[in-house]
Amino acid sequence: MARSAAVRPDQVRRHNLGLLLARIHQAGPLSRAELTTQLDLNRSTIGAFVSELCALGLLREEVPSSGSHAGRPSHMVGPRPDGPYAVAVDLEVDRLVIAAVGIGGAVLARRELRIRAPGRPDAVAGQIARAMPALAAKLPGCAWPIGVGVSVPGTVGRGNGEAAMVRFAPHLGWQDAPLGRLLGNQLAHAVPISLGNDADLAVIAEHLRGAAKDCDDVIYLAGKVGIGAGIMVDGHPLSGHGGLAGEVGHTPLDPNGPVCCCGSRGCVETFIGGSALLALAGHADQPAELPNVLRRARRGEPIATAAVTAVGTSLGRVLASLVNLLNPQRVILGGCLADVLELAGPQVSAALSQHAMPAAREMVELALPGLRADSSLLGAADLVFAPLLADPVGTVSRRIAAVS
Amino acid sequence: MARSAAVRPDQVRRHNLGLLLARIHQAGPLSRAELTTQLDLNRSTIGAFVSELCALGLLREEVPSSGSHAGRPSHMVGPRPDGPYAVAVDLEVDRLVIAAVGIGGAVLARRELRIRAPGRPDAVAGQIARAMPALAAKLPGCAWPIGVGVSVPGTVGRGNGEAAMVRFAPHLGWQDAPLGRLLGNQLAHAVPISLGNDADLAVIAEHLRGAAKDCDDVIYLAGKVGIGAGIMVDGHPLSGHGGLAGEVGHTPLDPNGPVCCCGSRGCVETFIGGSALLALAGHADQPAELPNVLRRARRGEPIATAAVTAVGTSLGRVLASLVNLLNPQRVILGGCLADVLELAGPQVSAALSQHAMPAAREMVELALPGLRADSSLLGAADLVFAPLLADPVGTVSRRIAAVS
Repeated sequence: MARSAAVRPDQVRRHNLGLLLARIHQAGPLSRAELTTQLDLNRSTIGAFVSELCALGLLREEVPSSGSHAGRPSHMVGPRPDGPYAVAVDLEVDRLVIAAVGIGGAVLARRELRIRAPGRPDAVAGQIARAMPALAAKLPGCAWPIGVGVSVPGTVGRGNGEAAMVRFAPHLGWQDAPLGRLLGNQLAHAVPISLGNDADLAVIAEHLRGAAKDCDDVIYLAGKVGIGAGIMVDGHPLSGHGGLAGEVGHTPLDPNGPVCCCGSRGCVETFIGGSALLALAGHADQPAELPNVLRRARRGEPIATAAVTAVGTSLGRVLASLVNLLNPQRVILGGCLADVLELAGPQVSAALSQHAMPAAREMVELALPGLRADSSLLGAADLVFAPLLADPVGTVSRRIAAVS
Repeated sequence: MARSAAVRPDQVRRHNLGLLLARIHQAGPLSRAELTTQLDLNRSTIGAFVSELCALGLLREEVPSSGSHAGRPSHMVGPRPDGPYAVAVDLEVDRLVIAAVGIGGAVLARRELRIRAPGRPDAVAGQIARAMPALAAKLPGCAWPIGVGVSVPGTVGRGNGEAAMVRFAPHLGWQDAPLGRLLGNQLAHAVPISLGNDADLAVIAEHLRGAAKDCDDVIYLAGKVGIGAGIMVDGHPLSGHGGLAGEVGHTPLDPNGPVCCCGSRGCVETFIGGSALLALAGHADQPAELPNVLRRARRGEPIATAAVTAVGTSLGRVLASLVNLLNPQRVILGGCLADVLELAGPQVSAALSQHAMPAAREMVELALPGLRADSSLLGAADLVFAPLLADPVGTVSRRIAAVS
């Protein structure tokens, strides 16, 4: 519900119904008593909402098989295993993960596929479409997909469905790729399709259930081939005017730094990206060597250790800019930056302290992703669930109308 | 109304009543028909709300003396000139402006006072307290102050009233100054006191009625002695976890740049702050010379022009970082950066284009403040009005209880 709009009483019920479903989606099964407390609504309202969401086939109530408390065990309200699921896709440069994710964020089935370079948009859309029946075969027969969400290593347009576009994914070599239309053309049954930037989706998922579930001002900084950031402000994703926020990779860090793939000099990416780490370790342009370099650094081999340490110091300077500008409570470091934090934590921390404003520096914690490598994948599922959580009745009604 | 909270029907009326008052506060006088359309509520609800806000002494209805339309002129609902007002203070390093601001943002009375360096917090509090009766004397007798809001060139804590603290205002030489308590001690009558960072307040005011009233993703970048930023994301102020967001002045821009007053090297402030401009023009540490340097640049004198041009090029690089990270629709340049934009627009624009991501660059417009030098002052008034707009009935009731 937008904070600046007038509210009509008839909207309140729909809003609160979605809120109850969102609570279960975030926290997993809860008793009616817990829902009553957490949503600050009375017991009879909660009871009516739970009945309605069960009748819609979204939730179920069951008595837990064993309880640690004495007395009659409380009924638990939770997701149905044969209910709706999101098809979530995490697209990277050389592979894609496709998964069926249920309400509550459980990965019900998953597959990983290699992408043969160069992965053309229509070929990737075909791989996703062909993998969906195999995924569905692993689920109960009446489970139904509510949509497909794709995490993309690049910027995406605002449109959904047929209009969903990858605007610019330099490391895939894609520009203005109509992935929504290409995927829609190849699906056996029409479902809503949505795309999101990988770091934007990762911060949403980490905020919902991962390393930032207890804080509302958080940044997810991802190091893959390039560098991307997903930003959450006061509990809401910062997307910017055109959905392009978080592109820190080509921000100028040193006018005398290395030449960047974008043609400029000294961009952030040339100091802390995966390619920067490889170049410092003597493996420029050999992306497949990255795991080996990190392994050698873990063993303390000097060249690899020096490369990781240098990236750590530069990372601290980049973090200082983010801390000064956004005053986050937590910064989550993903991809190879998670390894840099583990291996060169003191150097990261020292450079951050040297360049950030002291008061803002004191408040920020650096953290590893709580959802490990699945942050973007689960964020793609959340993209699919968003319309259902905003309006459960309307979403299920539209599905019934489409099927019958 | 927080977007994640459950809504009870009894909260809806209070929310909508405040929304109507906020609409008038932003837009000025409106007819009942315009209010009905803009708030998407029915005529009888609008009528009841207007009557209630008039009865509370906040608004009045009147027939305009002349109308351009034929037929019976529509009653206009607008602020009462003898209603509540905010005492707004814009504190700078060497002067303060104190003003009485009415609902709708009209400056009803104002005074400007010089601050003799070093302006100690208790002396400044005394100047503000002594100026208030003179301000009140210029207003109708029954007008009443709802609070004091102070714009500060530094970071402020989260507390209000007695607990309102200036955390760090380096150019004033203040650290952890209890301005709320000092001011409260000197006021003849207790009123709520609130503090805000100058750039944070400026962007709120510019978004409400100034150069950003039509856009929700906007940055106000202010050049005074130092550099500060106020950021608005999706129509909401970005304050950060501890209210410290927007401190771009000491962000590293070039590891080989000039030594900064903070002890580091190559901070943003050493390239685009007022002191940087003075140093480049051969007047280091002579802040009083800044207007003369800008005047000489306007006349095309070579040294001053070269200084402004160099600052313009650096400003473009700083803007590129902000554009890449936040994807704003508009960036408003205030203080001496407004002069730099006017005098070196092409250089600013060229450096921005060179370093920003093309898609985000295309979307952003650079603008001058719509409220001229009063952005922070009017933002301080908005800080005072916020509780009234959130809950008109409660705020007026508390005032009546306090007076009687």
